Amino acid sequence: MNLNYPSKLLEAAVNEFATLPGIGQKTALRLVLHLLRQDRAALESFGNSVIRLGTDLKFCRICHNVCDAEVCGVCDDKRRDQSIICVVESIKDVMIIENTQQYRGVYHVLGGIISPMDGLGPSDLNINSLEERIKQGGINEIILALSATMEGDTTNFYLYRRLSVYKTAFSTLARGVSIGDELEYTDEVTLGRSLVNRIPFTASSS
Amino acid sequence: MNLNYPSKLLEAAVNEFATLPGIGQKTALRLVLHLLRQDRAALESFGNSVIRLGTDLKFCRICHNVCDAEVCGVCDDKRRDQSIICVVESIKDVMIIENTQQYRGVYHVLGGIISPMDGLGPSDLNINSLEERIKQGGINEIILALSATMEGDTTNFYLYRRLSVYKTAFSTLARGVSIGDELEYTDEVTLGRSLVNRIPFTASSS
Repeated sequence: MNLNYPSKLLEAAVNEFATLPGIGQKTALRLVLHLLRQDRAALESFGNSVIRLGTDLKFCRICHNVCDAEVCGVCDDKRRDQSIICVVESIKDVMIIENTQQYRGVYHVLGGIISPMDGLGPSDLNINSLEERIKQGGINEIILALSATMEGDTTNFYLYRRLSVYKTAFSTLARGVSIGDELEYTDEVTLGRSLVNRIPFTASSS
Repeated sequence: MNLNYPSKLLEAAVNEFATLPGIGQKTALRLVLHLLRQDRAALESFGNSVIRLGTDLKFCRICHNVCDAEVCGVCDDKRRDQSIICVVESIKDVMIIENTQQYRGVYHVLGGIISPMDGLGPSDLNINSLEERIKQGGINEIILALSATMEGDTTNFYLYRRLSVYKTAFSTLARGVSIGDELEYTDEVTLGRSLVNRIPFTASSS
């Protein structure tokens, strides 16, 4: 549907929304027509929330997570174990791990993953600052929490090769059968890996 | 997924996007994280396009369509037949009809449809201004181009009862089998109606 717009302003807004992932011209128009029914204050609030992402949002100077101050709430929290760094690809991964409420250490957001296909090399990622954190000492463990993909494995390997000189322990997320999954539906690579890396069973295991 | 946000600004933007139809918290977060990767100028342009919908966008004082001036491009176009008014429910309907390139008259946007279920009565719609346009004379035909639903039929009937005193011809969109449709998949109400309202066949009909 290639529509002619009765207004340049309407068209401009539709084009902006159509740049978002998964939003085509037709959906963008539906969203903008919804906005048209809102009052001026609501539109101003919406627009300003987007503008402020560019002007006011900060990135933690330690772990590169988004925050509203110089240092994020996690890095600034003395109750958290500052000697364990969980290395993740993106801001979203931090949110997902925080949501499990199982982790009490701190993070380091790489801002991507080594991917030659996308032209992303080690120099495009926040690796230098990670190295600085380790050099300063006091880090006992680096948890590599990247995706279980070829790019994730490549990045894990690169980080290990470069950073293991500092004598810090490295670990990675356990791979295995998802909790709640039936064996029948588990892919064979995962199942094979979970057999090789089987863990001692005690009454409190599951 | 009920996430804790590392930043109030991020959360505010996600909540704004989550007010849009068909966009939940999870999708809103994905959209905002995409925006986070844009530069400040792009975010300002996006935000301002939304704000300007409230501050700068105008509605044509004749037909109520959106436009950038006092009078829209259609009402202002002397090559278009100003004696035929096509009555539609929304701005989007104008765009859809314009897109067919089959209509050379002008429009009147009601801004809704009579729907007691949604608490929308005749006084909530742009009917007074339509009556004024007809009263001023020079209107030969009113095309009722509302949805083929019960609410559309109710609105058609109301408009006809109220406006037919001005001796203007009324018409409505043809109902029938969609072009390209097989009879097998046409619903029986439509098929019945298209039999009753059958049209003379000539070599140039289809």
